[in-house]
Amino acid sequence: MPMVTEWQSFGPQPKGPPKDDADAAARKERKVKCSAMAKRLADEFNKKEWSEKKITKELDSLVAELEAGGGDALAGGATIETLEPPSGTRDFYPEEYRVQSWLFDQFHETARMFGFSQYDAPVLEHVRLYERKAGEEITGQMYAFTDQEGARVTLRPEMTPTLARMVLNKTNLQTGDVRVPLPLKWYSIPQCWRFETTQRGRKREHYQWNMDVVGVEHVHAELELLAAAVSFFERVGITSKEVGIKVNSRAVLEAILAKHGIEKGSKNDKGEDIFAKACVIIDKLDKIGAEAVTCMLGEDVDVKPEAAADILQSLEAKSIDELANQLGDAGKDNPAINDVKRLFELAVDYGISDYLVLDASVVRGLAYYTGIVWEAFDRRGQLRAIMGGGRYDRLLELYGGAKCQIPCVGFGFGDCVIMELLKECNKLPDLSTGFLDYVVCAYSPELYGAASKVAAGLRKTGKSVDLMPTPKKKVANSFKHADVTGAQRMVFVAPSEIEKGVVRVKDLRTKDKNGEAIQVDCPLDQLDKLDEMMAQAAEKSS
Amino acid sequence: MPMVTEWQSFGPQPKGPPKDDADAAARKERKVKCSAMAKRLADEFNKKEWSEKKITKELDSLVAELEAGGGDALAGGATIETLEPPSGTRDFYPEEYRVQSWLFDQFHETARMFGFSQYDAPVLEHVRLYERKAGEEITGQMYAFTDQEGARVTLRPEMTPTLARMVLNKTNLQTGDVRVPLPLKWYSIPQCWRFETTQRGRKREHYQWNMDVVGVEHVHAELELLAAAVSFFERVGITSKEVGIKVNSRAVLEAILAKHGIEKGSKNDKGEDIFAKACVIIDKLDKIGAEAVTCMLGEDVDVKPEAAADILQSLEAKSIDELANQLGDAGKDNPAINDVKRLFELAVDYGISDYLVLDASVVRGLAYYTGIVWEAFDRRGQLRAIMGGGRYDRLLELYGGAKCQIPCVGFGFGDCVIMELLKECNKLPDLSTGFLDYVVCAYSPELYGAASKVAAGLRKTGKSVDLMPTPKKKVANSFKHADVTGAQRMVFVAPSEIEKGVVRVKDLRTKDKNGEAIQVDCPLDQLDKLDEMMAQAAEKSS
Repeated sequence: MPMVTEWQSFGPQPKGPPKDDADAAARKERKVKCSAMAKRLADEFNKKEWSEKKITKELDSLVAELEAGGGDALAGGATIETLEPPSGTRDFYPEEYRVQSWLFDQFHETARMFGFSQYDAPVLEHVRLYERKAGEEITGQMYAFTDQEGARVTLRPEMTPTLARMVLNKTNLQTGDVRVPLPLKWYSIPQCWRFETTQRGRKREHYQWNMDVVGVEHVHAELELLAAAVSFFERVGITSKEVGIKVNSRAVLEAILAKHGIEKGSKNDKGEDIFAKACVIIDKLDKIGAEAVTCMLGEDVDVKPEAAADILQSLEAKSIDELANQLGDAGKDNPAINDVKRLFELAVDYGISDYLVLDASVVRGLAYYTGIVWEAFDRRGQLRAIMGGGRYDRLLELYGGAKCQIPCVGFGFGDCVIMELLKECNKLPDLSTGFLDYVVCAYSPELYGAASKVAAGLRKTGKSVDLMPTPKKKVANSFKHADVTGAQRMVFVAPSEIEKGVVRVKDLRTKDKNGEAIQVDCPLDQLDKLDEMMAQAAEKSS
Repeated sequence: MPMVTEWQSFGPQPKGPPKDDADAAARKERKVKCSAMAKRLADEFNKKEWSEKKITKELDSLVAELEAGGGDALAGGATIETLEPPSGTRDFYPEEYRVQSWLFDQFHETARMFGFSQYDAPVLEHVRLYERKAGEEITGQMYAFTDQEGARVTLRPEMTPTLARMVLNKTNLQTGDVRVPLPLKWYSIPQCWRFETTQRGRKREHYQWNMDVVGVEHVHAELELLAAAVSFFERVGITSKEVGIKVNSRAVLEAILAKHGIEKGSKNDKGEDIFAKACVIIDKLDKIGAEAVTCMLGEDVDVKPEAAADILQSLEAKSIDELANQLGDAGKDNPAINDVKRLFELAVDYGISDYLVLDASVVRGLAYYTGIVWEAFDRRGQLRAIMGGGRYDRLLELYGGAKCQIPCVGFGFGDCVIMELLKECNKLPDLSTGFLDYVVCAYSPELYGAASKVAAGLRKTGKSVDLMPTPKKKVANSFKHADVTGAQRMVFVAPSEIEKGVVRVKDLRTKDKNGEAIQVDCPLDQLDKLDEMMAQAAEKSS
C-alpha cells in the first residue's frame, strides 16, 4: 500500500532527463559528475589505498576532463549519459547494496517471525489494474506505456492491486470462496515506480515492504500488522521516542462526514465517489492547510464552509472518546469507534502502545481504504511518512465482483525514508568488513594449483574465500590484497610450507592478549579444523 | 551475460497478449483459466483440507463459469485479463516463491563462498546502452519504449552492459584507472526482459544469476567462475553425470577464421565487424545445421564454401591438441591455445575437470566475447543451455573509450532451465512445512490479549509465530488452523492454564518414542526456555 508522495530521494540526487540535442545539458551533466567524483575522492581520502600522489593524479585528470568540456563525447565516444542509469533511478554498488540488503533482511526477518509468507509478481502490470480505483493521483503518475503489441502496461506504481489480482486468481468469483485456506498472511518487497515530470531531484523508483492479511474482518489483523511494524523498529533500534504511528479509522471519518451529508457510495456529477474524494482532500490537510481543504470540499463534494469547519474541528480530536462525543448519537455504540477502542486496548498487551497515537486527521491518500488507517512518522517531524497502511475491505469486490467481499488489511513501508531516519539516528551497522573469511595467496604461478585446492577445501567447509588471482612473490603484495578485501584471515601458499604439507594461516584483524599475531601452520588435510586451531593458537600465546 | 535464446518457460505456459476487442480470445482465455483451475483442484485433491464435498462444489461452479461463457465480463465486471499478469510474465505465489527463494539462496550462498559482492541496478535502462554492440539479436527483442519525456528506455535485456556502465562510472576515462581496487568480483540476480511477438508461450522475463570478475587478464578468473558454477551444481546435488560445461575460446576461433581471411576488426560493407558476425552465425550451428551456416558465412562475411567446410571441420575438434594441429604454424605457441590448455590443467586442482569438455563449436551468441567462452548443458541433451559465459575484454573500451582496456569475465545463469533440470532430477527440496515454529491460539476473545503477549514473547526469542486471528472455543478448530499453517508446535491459551500462569504447548509433528504426543505446560515467564522443556518432555516419556 504505497503512497507515491512518500517517496523521497536519499543519497545522490537523481538528475533530470538526458537531452540528446543540448550541449549545455551535457556540460551540466559533466559538471555534476565531476563534482560527484571530487566528493568521492574526498571521501576516499582517508583510506590508506589512496596515497596523496594517487589522489593528486586523479584530481589533475579531473581538471583535464572538465577543461576538455565542449562536445558531447568523452574519450572514445562515451557520453556521461550512457554511463548513468535513467533519470530518478538508483544504482546500488556493493557497498551500498550491503546496506540495502541489511535493511531487506530486517524486513524478511520480521515477516518470518510474524508468520508471513513471501510472494512476488512482475514489475510490469496492465494499466487497467489501476484504473479501477477512483479519486487517486496514482494513475496520473504511472510509468506507463503502450508496448509493441498495443498492450497498455506500466511499471507498477504500488503492490496492493497486484495482491488483489493474485488473491482473486485463487477465488471462485461466482461464490467468493478463496481456494486456499484463509487468512492469508503475505509479504513482498517490490520495487515500485512512478513517472513525475514536474519536480526534479525526486526519485522514480523505490522499494516497498508490503505486508497484508487477507480474510480477517476484525482488528486483530490490524494489530498483528502494527505489531510487526513496531517489532521491525525495535530490531533496528528505533524507539517510540523517535517514531510514532498515527492511527485513525476511515469508518469513523465516514460517520463524521455523514453528519454533513457526505454519504459513502454517493457520486458527484463527475461520477466519482464523494466519500473517497473527500478523503483524498482531507489527506492533503497537512500540506495545503485548512483554507484550501475547505475550498476543495466545497468545490468537489459540495460541502458548505460551516460544515467544513465542523469537520475540521472533529479532525483535531485528541482521543477516541472526544471523537465519539462530537459525533453525538452516531458516536454511541458505533462499531467503528469500538474497533478503534479495542485496538488501543489490545495494543497494551502487545506491548506496542508507546508507539501508537490517535490522529483523526489521518486519512491516507488511497481511495480504497475502508476502516482503520495508520501512518508512521518521526517525532521530530522532519521526514515524510515512514510507513502507511490500513484496511481495504472492498478492493477485491471492485476487481472480482459482488461476491468477493474479502476483508483485507496491509501496509507499505518504503526503503527511502527509513534509511534517512536510520542514518540520522546512527543506527546503520558497519558492514564494511566481516563478509570475507579468507584470502588465499599463492607465492608463485606454479603454486596457484595448490592454492586453488586450499580455497576449494575451505569453501567446502562453508567459508567465504577469495583466491588472489595473480600470485605475487612479494609477501607485502599479498598482504595488501588481503587487507583491501577486508578478509579476516590470510592463507599463504609457499614452497617451503607446501613441501611439508602445510599452509601458513594468519589472522589479519585480531591479535592475542600479548598483542602478537595469531598464526598456525595448518596441514592440508585438516582445513576443516582451522577454526579450532586458530582458537588454540590465540589461547596458547596468551 | 544472458542469452535470450536460453529462456524457456516452465510451469504454466504464459498466454498471448490480451485483445480488448475479441470475444473469442476472451473465451479462449477463460478456458485456459478453467483448465488450470481444474488442474489445481486435482493437485489439491490429496490435501486433507479439501473434502470431497468441497471439491464437488468447486467443480460445479467451474462448470457454471464455463457455461456462462460469452461476454468478456465475469461477475461484477471483473475480466480474466484483469486478473492475469501481462503476457509472458510470472506471478510467484508463496508456495512457488519458496522454491524460487531457495534457488536464489543457493546462488547467494555460492557467491558468498567465492567472495563475490552483490550489486543491483534499475530494471530500466537507456536503449542506447544496448545499441553499442553490433551483430546481436538482443536489440531487436528488447522490451523498449519511449517515455513521456521522450527518453528511449527499455526493461533491461541483460545485465552485462549495466555492469560495464557501473564500472566505468568508477573509472577515470582519460587514464583508464578504476577508482576502486581491482579485481572486482561482483554478482547480481537481476530480472531480465525481452519482447518477442512471434512465438507464443515463451516467457518475456527471467531471473539471471550474473557473476563477473573485472580486472583479471588471465584464466584464473575463468577458473574461479567455472569453479563457482560447479560448486553451485554440487550444492544442489547435480553431478557431472547430469551436466557438463563446454569450453572454447573465441581467440582460438579467431585463429581458425583468420586462416580464411576473416580478420578481427575488419568490417563488411554494412560496417559490421565480420569476426563478430561470423561468431553469431557459427553459434547457430546446432540449430540451423552446417549447410545454412555455410550459406550465411558466404552471404554475410564472404567465405567461400571450401573455406567454410574447413572451418566446420575445425569446430569438430575433440581436444585442444587436435585443434592446435589443425591450425598448423598458427597453433604453435599460440597464447589462446595455451590459455585453454592451462585452464584444463588447473581444473584438475580445482576438482572441477569432470564437468569440463572442450567444444570448439561453442561461440555464445553475444558479440562482445573476446576469449574463453563456455556453456553448461544437460548431458541428456534435452534442455537449452543452463548457463553461459566468457571473457569480454573489449566491452568497457567500447563504452568508455580507448583507455578503458579493462579485462572482464562473467557468466549468466538463468532461473528457468536449472529449475526444469532440478525438477527432472528430483532435487527440489520439500519446502511445504518447517517455516513456522508456533501457532498461538486463544480459547476466547477475552484471552486474545494474553495470547498476543505469548506470541510477542516467543517472537522475542526469534521464533516464527502465527497468532490465530479469530479465537475458537472448539479446540478442534484451533488444531485445524494450526495444521493448515504447517506449524511445528501449537500453544493453547485457555482460562484454566492462564489462571495458573502457564500455557499448554503441544508438538504437532513429532511424537515421542512411545508414539505419544509431546506436550508441556510452560510458565509465562519461561517462554525462552521452551525448546529445552520440549526436549526434556520428549526424553521423559520415552
